[in-house]
Amino acid sequence: MIEHSGTVASAGTSSVPEAGVASLLGVLAYGELMAFFDVARVAEMAPTVRSQQELGALAAREYAVYEQLSGRLRQMGVEPAEAMQPFHEPFDNWHARITPADWHEGLMKIYAGAAIATDFYRELTDVLDPQTAAMVREALPDDEQAALARTALLEAIEQDDRLAGRLALLGRRMMGEALSQAQLVALVNDDLLDLIMDRGTGQGFDLVGFQQLLARLGEKHTRRMAALGLDA
Amino acid sequence: MIEHSGTVASAGTSSVPEAGVASLLGVLAYGELMAFFDVARVAEMAPTVRSQQELGALAAREYAVYEQLSGRLRQMGVEPAEAMQPFHEPFDNWHARITPADWHEGLMKIYAGAAIATDFYRELTDVLDPQTAAMVREALPDDEQAALARTALLEAIEQDDRLAGRLALLGRRMMGEALSQAQLVALVNDDLLDLIMDRGTGQGFDLVGFQQLLARLGEKHTRRMAALGLDA
Repeated sequence: MIEHSGTVASAGTSSVPEAGVASLLGVLAYGELMAFFDVARVAEMAPTVRSQQELGALAAREYAVYEQLSGRLRQMGVEPAEAMQPFHEPFDNWHARITPADWHEGLMKIYAGAAIATDFYRELTDVLDPQTAAMVREALPDDEQAALARTALLEAIEQDDRLAGRLALLGRRMMGEALSQAQLVALVNDDLLDLIMDRGTGQGFDLVGFQQLLARLGEKHTRRMAALGLDA
Repeated sequence: MIEHSGTVASAGTSSVPEAGVASLLGVLAYGELMAFFDVARVAEMAPTVRSQQELGALAAREYAVYEQLSGRLRQMGVEPAEAMQPFHEPFDNWHARITPADWHEGLMKIYAGAAIATDFYRELTDVLDPQTAAMVREALPDDEQAALARTALLEAIEQDDRLAGRLALLGRRMMGEALSQAQLVALVNDDLLDLIMDRGTGQGFDLVGFQQLLARLGEKHTRRMAALGLDA
């Protein structure tokens, strides 16, 4: 149990380090581009034309979020590809470790994996200037994606109870991988670290605050797993 | 060599069979949805963030085409999923037979495979009423996609001359598969067959006309392969 009360602060529009903001938008944009690829791949695996359509529409929405985030980078005078480049490797690692073997694992990656990432991105908006934070919160995907995947997963688990065990295991693996990737992402460069972690500047999360953030990700994940009747 | 002159006719807006048009729009829409998944998957395999971006943008454009075609179906009072359903199996077969093993094979599937399909769809618009035909021709992807994939393939072939042989072989396999799939698609149901093939109604291609269509697909394919320095 965490006893100390952690803090997070954004020092206001003027002093939030711009290079860090560009880096963070780079993480978010690249995350969305990868989520787009991911959801499209799961859509391709879907067993019916209707589920291919529904997931295809979700994938297209992830792309629209990516475009909004890239647009914001261009407004700041930053080439999106440059801002995204440093995250190529950590994201590739995550996707290589969590490659869905079939349609149900694909749904699980959308329902649980992408949701952890979105929760993380939402938390990170706390360190941004209010205007960028509002724009990012607005852009990030809503819960419709989770709802769609949850419905399909609940049906599948009901029809095949051995599936529950396999998916519970996958959920635990995803949470573990996500926590280590989240820390790798935060450490990618000094600009980003200065934005996210308060190392005496009054900007970002202090260590306890960051631990609490990770704990909140875990709690939300546990609730999502419970909504499927699975132990986290 | 084809000596007879084949014909194709659309009997005009009033008498083009509506059920056939819905079927044809179903083929086109499902083809685009699958192309969207395909390009997204190739984008995911792309080696650099920039090529992931470029191919991601192409994938999103395929989705936009799919949406236009679905919209047209809805206008006609047809549920897109229902119009697409009969093509689930033939399309699955094509994609299962031509699954790119790596980034270069993926580019080849976009450059040569998707292009054969688009050529075929363009030819089929000849049997539609003029208004629907114009809308479909407008919606179908332009050559930008081919140009992007061609540039990347030419670079890769230049760097690795063993690649040329492997891609030439893949191109031949794709053409063969495409021709048999095209015929399977045309045969999927009577409505579609009545629209596409003139069986005494004066609507559609006569047999010679359809053979000539397939020959034109082959010629265009040969030219695309030649543009890569490959034999078809």
